[in-house]
Amino acid sequence: MAKFIENGTRYHLDDPCIAPNSAAYLWNKKMMLHMNCRGFAVSQYMDPEPRKYAHVPNLAAQSFMQPEQPYFSHHPGRFFYLRDNQSGEMFSAPYEPMKVDLDRFAFEPGLADIRWVVEKLDIELSIRLNLAVDAVLECWQVTVKNLSSQRRDISLIPYFPVGYASWMNMGGQYDAELNAIVCSSVTPYQKVTDYFKHQHFKDLTFLSASRLPDFYEVSQQAFEGEGGLHNPSALQQGGNLNNGEAHYELPAAIMQFQYNLPANGSDVLKLSFGPAKDKAEIKQLNQQYLYADQEPQRQVCEAYFAQAKGCITIETPDQQFNHFVNHWLPRQVFYHGDSQRLTTDPQTRNYLQDAMGMVYLKPEACKQALLTALKQQKFSGEMPDGILLSEQAELKYINQVPHTDHPVWLAIVLNAYLQETNDYSLLQVKLGWADNSLEQSVFEHVSKAMQFLCEAKDERGLPYIAQGDWCDPMNMVGYQGKGVSGWLAEAISYALQLWVPICEHLGEAALVQTFSQHAEQLNQRINQYFWDGAWYGRGITDAGKLFGISSDKEGRIFLNAQSWALLCGAANDEQKAQMLKAIDEQLDTPFGVMMSAPAFTEMRDDVGRVTQKWPGSAENGSVYNHAAAFYAASLYASSEGQRAFDVLRKMLPSNQNQELKVRGQLPIYLPNYYRGAYYQYPRTAGRSSNLFNTGTCAWYYQLVVEQLFGLRGTPQGLLLSPQLPDDWPKASVVREFRGAVFSIEYQQVNAGRAQPLCAKQLMSADEAKLTITQQADKQLLISGFVTG
Amino acid sequence: MAKFIENGTRYHLDDPCIAPNSAAYLWNKKMMLHMNCRGFAVSQYMDPEPRKYAHVPNLAAQSFMQPEQPYFSHHPGRFFYLRDNQSGEMFSAPYEPMKVDLDRFAFEPGLADIRWVVEKLDIELSIRLNLAVDAVLECWQVTVKNLSSQRRDISLIPYFPVGYASWMNMGGQYDAELNAIVCSSVTPYQKVTDYFKHQHFKDLTFLSASRLPDFYEVSQQAFEGEGGLHNPSALQQGGNLNNGEAHYELPAAIMQFQYNLPANGSDVLKLSFGPAKDKAEIKQLNQQYLYADQEPQRQVCEAYFAQAKGCITIETPDQQFNHFVNHWLPRQVFYHGDSQRLTTDPQTRNYLQDAMGMVYLKPEACKQALLTALKQQKFSGEMPDGILLSEQAELKYINQVPHTDHPVWLAIVLNAYLQETNDYSLLQVKLGWADNSLEQSVFEHVSKAMQFLCEAKDERGLPYIAQGDWCDPMNMVGYQGKGVSGWLAEAISYALQLWVPICEHLGEAALVQTFSQHAEQLNQRINQYFWDGAWYGRGITDAGKLFGISSDKEGRIFLNAQSWALLCGAANDEQKAQMLKAIDEQLDTPFGVMMSAPAFTEMRDDVGRVTQKWPGSAENGSVYNHAAAFYAASLYASSEGQRAFDVLRKMLPSNQNQELKVRGQLPIYLPNYYRGAYYQYPRTAGRSSNLFNTGTCAWYYQLVVEQLFGLRGTPQGLLLSPQLPDDWPKASVVREFRGAVFSIEYQQVNAGRAQPLCAKQLMSADEAKLTITQQADKQLLISGFVTG
Repeated sequence: MAKFIENGTRYHLDDPCIAPNSAAYLWNKKMMLHMNCRGFAVSQYMDPEPRKYAHVPNLAAQSFMQPEQPYFSHHPGRFFYLRDNQSGEMFSAPYEPMKVDLDRFAFEPGLADIRWVVEKLDIELSIRLNLAVDAVLECWQVTVKNLSSQRRDISLIPYFPVGYASWMNMGGQYDAELNAIVCSSVTPYQKVTDYFKHQHFKDLTFLSASRLPDFYEVSQQAFEGEGGLHNPSALQQGGNLNNGEAHYELPAAIMQFQYNLPANGSDVLKLSFGPAKDKAEIKQLNQQYLYADQEPQRQVCEAYFAQAKGCITIETPDQQFNHFVNHWLPRQVFYHGDSQRLTTDPQTRNYLQDAMGMVYLKPEACKQALLTALKQQKFSGEMPDGILLSEQAELKYINQVPHTDHPVWLAIVLNAYLQETNDYSLLQVKLGWADNSLEQSVFEHVSKAMQFLCEAKDERGLPYIAQGDWCDPMNMVGYQGKGVSGWLAEAISYALQLWVPICEHLGEAALVQTFSQHAEQLNQRINQYFWDGAWYGRGITDAGKLFGISSDKEGRIFLNAQSWALLCGAANDEQKAQMLKAIDEQLDTPFGVMMSAPAFTEMRDDVGRVTQKWPGSAENGSVYNHAAAFYAASLYASSEGQRAFDVLRKMLPSNQNQELKVRGQLPIYLPNYYRGAYYQYPRTAGRSSNLFNTGTCAWYYQLVVEQLFGLRGTPQGLLLSPQLPDDWPKASVVREFRGAVFSIEYQQVNAGRAQPLCAKQLMSADEAKLTITQQADKQLLISGFVTG
Repeated sequence: MAKFIENGTRYHLDDPCIAPNSAAYLWNKKMMLHMNCRGFAVSQYMDPEPRKYAHVPNLAAQSFMQPEQPYFSHHPGRFFYLRDNQSGEMFSAPYEPMKVDLDRFAFEPGLADIRWVVEKLDIELSIRLNLAVDAVLECWQVTVKNLSSQRRDISLIPYFPVGYASWMNMGGQYDAELNAIVCSSVTPYQKVTDYFKHQHFKDLTFLSASRLPDFYEVSQQAFEGEGGLHNPSALQQGGNLNNGEAHYELPAAIMQFQYNLPANGSDVLKLSFGPAKDKAEIKQLNQQYLYADQEPQRQVCEAYFAQAKGCITIETPDQQFNHFVNHWLPRQVFYHGDSQRLTTDPQTRNYLQDAMGMVYLKPEACKQALLTALKQQKFSGEMPDGILLSEQAELKYINQVPHTDHPVWLAIVLNAYLQETNDYSLLQVKLGWADNSLEQSVFEHVSKAMQFLCEAKDERGLPYIAQGDWCDPMNMVGYQGKGVSGWLAEAISYALQLWVPICEHLGEAALVQTFSQHAEQLNQRINQYFWDGAWYGRGITDAGKLFGISSDKEGRIFLNAQSWALLCGAANDEQKAQMLKAIDEQLDTPFGVMMSAPAFTEMRDDVGRVTQKWPGSAENGSVYNHAAAFYAASLYASSEGQRAFDVLRKMLPSNQNQELKVRGQLPIYLPNYYRGAYYQYPRTAGRSSNLFNTGTCAWYYQLVVEQLFGLRGTPQGLLLSPQLPDDWPKASVVREFRGAVFSIEYQQVNAGRAQPLCAKQLMSADEAKLTITQQADKQLLISGFVTG
């Protein structure tokens, strides 16, 4: 059975066929690797744009990461064939390409590595993969063990396909000096200017080994022959690899190691796989990683991932949830905040929300990201569509399409930062603008962003949507310059309401009044223009048509328009009750709450591209977890803790085979979506995108800390206001906060109301000053503690 | 054994493993299909840019056609599984994906169709494919025959994978009304402007059948399961397809037809496969092709390909050569001239040379192409890098890089046109310029092009190479504005020498003098600056360095620099002897003559991108047939008929298994290259690019007609001046010429000298006027005949 092991720091999947595409990911500052349980891999590194060192077998498009990545037998991956040379029997690990029934299979992703244990023919293969921390390098360790009581003559054959690297030049050969298969290529180009741009490229892909191979092959075709990858010709009838090369042929790094193992004997093979500029770099990487002591490397690697530690450790009756929140959620938050999703031009809203997640891990990173973003703000207050992270970077893909929501996230992120750190000094930091060298404070920057949002409105006072808001592909509601966004009106109102207290804190009375008044007006207009009788419409098209309403056959209800109406306070209690009923009836599913329904099945050209996406995928009516997290936030904000927790909890697959099969994903990360269209396409509903890039995780973490466990910072201290689910009789949390560490225990006092039972500061130099005050609203405030 | 059959109009390959990637191609004005013997396919259609309707299983790059296309089990193709439902035994046709040893295999490409016959389990599958003439549609016919004396219960399962059509939306289902599997997709885009551009796209891919399938499946994964394509789960243990759909999953069109065939019984299944805009179009295509009488369609199809008929029919002792020249070479010439290689912006030199081929098939097409090209000429005389064939077209890929040779080809093509047609009226046709509406005659246009060539020279009087000449990737010899091309100097001299007689013909004495003088000066300069003692150098770099010379370690000798020195008359007899010796020693191989040697193995940054291509591939030292054809032309021009024929003959693989294995190509088209680097990479030398887009075929045809058989037009009539190979005791030709048809017989009079033995006009209304005159140079001239 699938389960967390090692105190939740590792997951264990015992069958490669339950969720064939389930995967784990590793990364460092320079690269990312998405590795599935069967051995298929998608990996890329920054140079400065994302590049690959193992390719599909045809000329591939350069693109952003795609959901539901399809795998096929010649897809890039890392595989190990094992042959009993006496009997000729073979199997492959982890599972592909031979797909032989194994006696034992374990896919065990950990926080800092990925492990498999595979057993067949009385041979055990233990495979461990981690990434070098400071290099673009995969470090593999394979232990071959003879489980039988006879001496065994076996071959281990790592097969790392390199694929179609280039139509200009690709090939590969074994290099004796490096003891590596080195595949070379020339990144294709036609313009002479590109030659100079490409000169630094790492156009080599290598596989180095810790011992000499007995045989090798570099031509994929020579290896596979007529047999196919499930039964490669080169290994049939006791044959050995032919020491061949690839000469403008698909290269693959394939080595054959012969072992003569006594009963219960074992041996360890180490391999390095990655790209390099030249052989000198391979040599250096071999020395630094392959031939060096492993222990210090392991420590450095674990130290890197140890940074992915959040501000709480929880203990609840829900063990799987504990493991996820204690280990895997902060890991995903850290991935986003530390790697910027491995892009050089993150979308502004993503970049800001990813920074928001870092508030709870490493607030300084959030601060730096805010400053980076604000330096690229225009003097008008407008935010660009993407934040450029390197000098060569340019806005690509969706960042070339104008979206109107980007400034909103500044207030949301800054509010989170200030709540957690109380570091109001950030507001005084001065910095220039993208189009003006005048240095103004962060406070002025953000106020101008808010002002910009207030002003980009039509004659009704509603904000223009242009070619999209948060919903990227909702690009034709307002492309003629007239359409407006209901969600954006709510989001602006909410952002202003977060910004007003900050203005108050700084004594900016005029701004307090302006922004308060605008938020209030917006809330009125939201009700005037978008309320449809039982829920809020999503927007008004260029032609003046309200959509996302009961008379729409498709796209009848949009979740965000409801969630943010709750967040911004536009909805009254009666409206809220109606909305929740509508959401329950139309959007809720066993796999989470859908973003809209019914999913569009044909183009609606006054709404746009979103209606052309596959029904139930991505923004067209999937269980889009980012939107679900907003919904959870709105439920917590309106004291619907039980519902909110249900929403959060549904984002994680259970360990049950049936659920893993449907979701196709392990509960070690939040995917950006699960398939929706629950009533339209029930067969696929619940299937994960297996895409771990998502703004969801920052919100999820914030909600767990500040809402579920109710441990939110205020200028005065740490406010305790939990909303635990009904079925938790008790729970406890260790919370790091402003350098202090608290242990807090909760218990259910009466149905649906949990109370903090006891709170104490751990490792405090001076416990005496700690005071816990019950406030007028019955919330507890911890203050007077020693901060770090 | 592999061989031509059906009087050379069809080829027969009897083993799918000898030359696994060997292929045939079909096309119509709207599409092209490159089909290999094992069932893999690359197909595209014009819309207006090339688009695909069957895709690889991942996000593919849009690109020009690539040489040595790699295939892999999930590559697009058209496959048929056959299962004996009683025994459960299976095989697949043509050969992939199961790759089961067959009892009989025949891959039989014809001029207008492609056929396979496959036999296994006492079942014969006869498969025939042709394209609709006026639609983007594959028409399949499969005959299943029970060869045994028992009644048989069998399933035939066509498996046509559709692949990764789009990350936005892809799926598919069976449509009962159309009796078709219809796969839908939305071509991915992000910018709203593209929505409007894409509206006409044929985003459906369908497979219609002439009878109801008993079962079907549209999800590739559901079909394949854990079994793999070599043993699909859906067909294991007597299972039938599950009538499944693809919902944002890789779609495949898979149908299962049950047959209960009596002894020796057979049945015929018809299938249509292609793209469509909507279901109405599928319905219309079904009616027009699938359900309609096949015979008229077959006739239309054969009529289309019958246009691919050249102006000679030959009969020589070399049967394979006869078949190639009589059928397959004109077919390839016609493909180029009629389809423009399925691009909307053919490179100018390609477009012009492709038009040159049409001189011998359909001179009017050549004329129209010349006019199209000249309308896009600049008033300065300069030719653009590509010719735009549609209003939406734009210059792409290599056409964005400036090359200096384009005007050269005008004189060469016009000379061929005038020789063949004597239609000097074309020279008087008036047309405007790309940047000037002034209408001037074709003669003035081309003279200006010649003038432009004469003027783009440096202080030595040598022509600049800019970022390439004929050799596209020779892009860094002159990118700084100084480097010059030795080959281009020769080519200009040659073009001028062709243009001078035309100027003379028109009585343009001043131009005659100017151009003659320039050609003479060029020839002097060629010898002054490029002669290296035993051969000519290829160019002089920006830094003033002559390259392609004996002191170079790589790229020591370039074939074109020698060939064109012969063509333009720069080389004297002594030089010629030295050059031929050098070519024999350094460039000749059993698979043809290499374009340069030794191939570059590392970047030479004063030569450019050509040096980065894989050594022995494409322009970096392959047997580049276009260059080999130039060489043959130069040999004929200098009365080296035997050598010339050897060069031409080596471009065709023999029928021997060993040769087919090395070449990996059938002798039914000229590939753009065979691998060279014969001394550096002997294992791969001779391997075909299997790319049938090449300027080679026009030259090859011209040389066969005008040189080998010596049947060249002059203003006075048809000049007979053959250069037959020594080992042909006799030969005969039927030659169409200016509407008349001649039968000409040759015999070898003494070693190395063939003479026309007899010439008579066939089907002449008035034979009396036919006169054959022996000219002073002993060449025969046929004149006074009746033209059509």
